[in-house]
Amino acid sequence: MRIVDKQQIVAHIDLDLAVQWIEEGFVAFSNGTVQVPPVQSFAFTGANGDCCVKSAFMEGSETFTVKISTGFYDNPGKGLASNDGLMLVLSASNGQPIALLQDEGWLTCMRTALAGRIAARLLAPREVHAIGILGTGMQARMQLEQLLPVTACRRVIVWGRSEVALASYKAFASALGFEVHTTVDPREVAQGANLIVCATPSRQALIDNKWVRPGTHITAVGADAPGKQELDPLLVARADRIIVDSIVQCRQYGEVSHALKAGLIEEGRLSEIGALLDGRISGRANDDEITLVDLTGVAIQDAQIARCALQSLP
Amino acid sequence: MRIVDKQQIVAHIDLDLAVQWIEEGFVAFSNGTVQVPPVQSFAFTGANGDCCVKSAFMEGSETFTVKISTGFYDNPGKGLASNDGLMLVLSASNGQPIALLQDEGWLTCMRTALAGRIAARLLAPREVHAIGILGTGMQARMQLEQLLPVTACRRVIVWGRSEVALASYKAFASALGFEVHTTVDPREVAQGANLIVCATPSRQALIDNKWVRPGTHITAVGADAPGKQELDPLLVARADRIIVDSIVQCRQYGEVSHALKAGLIEEGRLSEIGALLDGRISGRANDDEITLVDLTGVAIQDAQIARCALQSLP
Repeated sequence: MRIVDKQQIVAHIDLDLAVQWIEEGFVAFSNGTVQVPPVQSFAFTGANGDCCVKSAFMEGSETFTVKISTGFYDNPGKGLASNDGLMLVLSASNGQPIALLQDEGWLTCMRTALAGRIAARLLAPREVHAIGILGTGMQARMQLEQLLPVTACRRVIVWGRSEVALASYKAFASALGFEVHTTVDPREVAQGANLIVCATPSRQALIDNKWVRPGTHITAVGADAPGKQELDPLLVARADRIIVDSIVQCRQYGEVSHALKAGLIEEGRLSEIGALLDGRISGRANDDEITLVDLTGVAIQDAQIARCALQSLP
Repeated sequence: MRIVDKQQIVAHIDLDLAVQWIEEGFVAFSNGTVQVPPVQSFAFTGANGDCCVKSAFMEGSETFTVKISTGFYDNPGKGLASNDGLMLVLSASNGQPIALLQDEGWLTCMRTALAGRIAARLLAPREVHAIGILGTGMQARMQLEQLLPVTACRRVIVWGRSEVALASYKAFASALGFEVHTTVDPREVAQGANLIVCATPSRQALIDNKWVRPGTHITAVGADAPGKQELDPLLVARADRIIVDSIVQCRQYGEVSHALKAGLIEEGRLSEIGALLDGRISGRANDDEITLVDLTGVAIQDAQIARCALQSLP
């Protein structure tokens, strides 16, 4: 079995290939040709930690993948990262383990950021005046990086709670070539940007429906577990297109789950990104529509980016 | 992360410690202090293979474990073993991966054999005239080996379908010090032995209720997936003590599931081995009782033997 560390993965991964394979994965998932067993979850209450195991096999693929990801939120005080993770790639023809990818959670962050890139490419308005980012963490950074190839806009409005974190994000985004405005008022993001990415661990709505202008696209990646929420459910209900990665998963704990539970939308209004990629449903019809992509993260993304990481190695 | 191969594990594992920790695991499981998320299963129909992912965390333990095991039944034709597997041990205090045990499925075989040893120690009649083994494969061998420390009996009657496999088993058991009788008629096992271990992949009953003598103990380990069966459901219903590793799992696909579905027993007749080990229920009352232990394999055994394998390394 090949053992690969994060540095090797980051140095060699072909991100354009990863986008292509993640798109293929989304399509296969929505067509029902992916085996995705139930997610395994652990809660380590004493240690303020959790773990989930996500596994997937796309029919016809030479391999399948088991991913273990952990979050231990007191780790920074011990000099360790909060999030860690690894992926195991096994042969679908003889069961032998092929590779252990010790990516420390990086591949999970990247497949999430690449899903944001795919969402923006599919649904962003033709002219992006400003990008809005909610959050200042690793995912908020990777989302902005992954928008570089899909929009010409180089203006970003970033919301965070901490001035220190905002200053750090500003340095990061400036180095990418962005003109950066930071704010502690989420209204400024909602009113100033028309391509918004929400990447926080918030447990309550940060963006009010009334603040959002027609024509805006929103990608929400924060609500990846029960109780998490970034958007006003009225905004979800107002969106002209509601695209999710997995209807089954999003109705449980995605951003859309809150609007469903409040009776503001019917499940029939949800479509999967795989169906959009496959051409079975249509995307943005005009520059006035509000579009929403709700990403909770599905195991087929892990399987596809793991395959790609392996394929990219020298 | 430490990476350990099968040879290192086999050379160093302290099996008495493994028994002790697996017993602790069974007790914790039955007391509800083990987190056992749903098993993840894959079917690779084209390749005649399957995979399952079993994970467990015992509250208070320093580690938790994720196990991946595969069965690809055309592998022998390719010069590969049918079964393979590995275990990952992670820290329950900070989520960091601690060890990858590339045991090739050996730890799963061993924890199953050790559960058979525990079952026999708890429930075998005082005087074992002959051990009966159904099956000639790896598990049938390991079960016999693990009976050595818990019974003085050195006489074994072995049933198999193939004379070649029986001859090979006879050589194996003779080398262990057993007087060996082989047979292709399961009746000989049932009538001649009073400590019987069933370790076959059978999908229909092999032992008829009428053949079994009072006082016999039976450990059934073969029925570890839907459709598998080794015992006459009437024999299950006749048993004075019906002990299972997991009531939840055994009512789905254990040996007892067939008797439950046929309405021959009520679920209230099932007790868990953890409750027996914990002294909350009683075991064999006399030398005339028929006792049955139905083992489907639970993830806490994997977590505990993995911990033990690590602990045993120099």
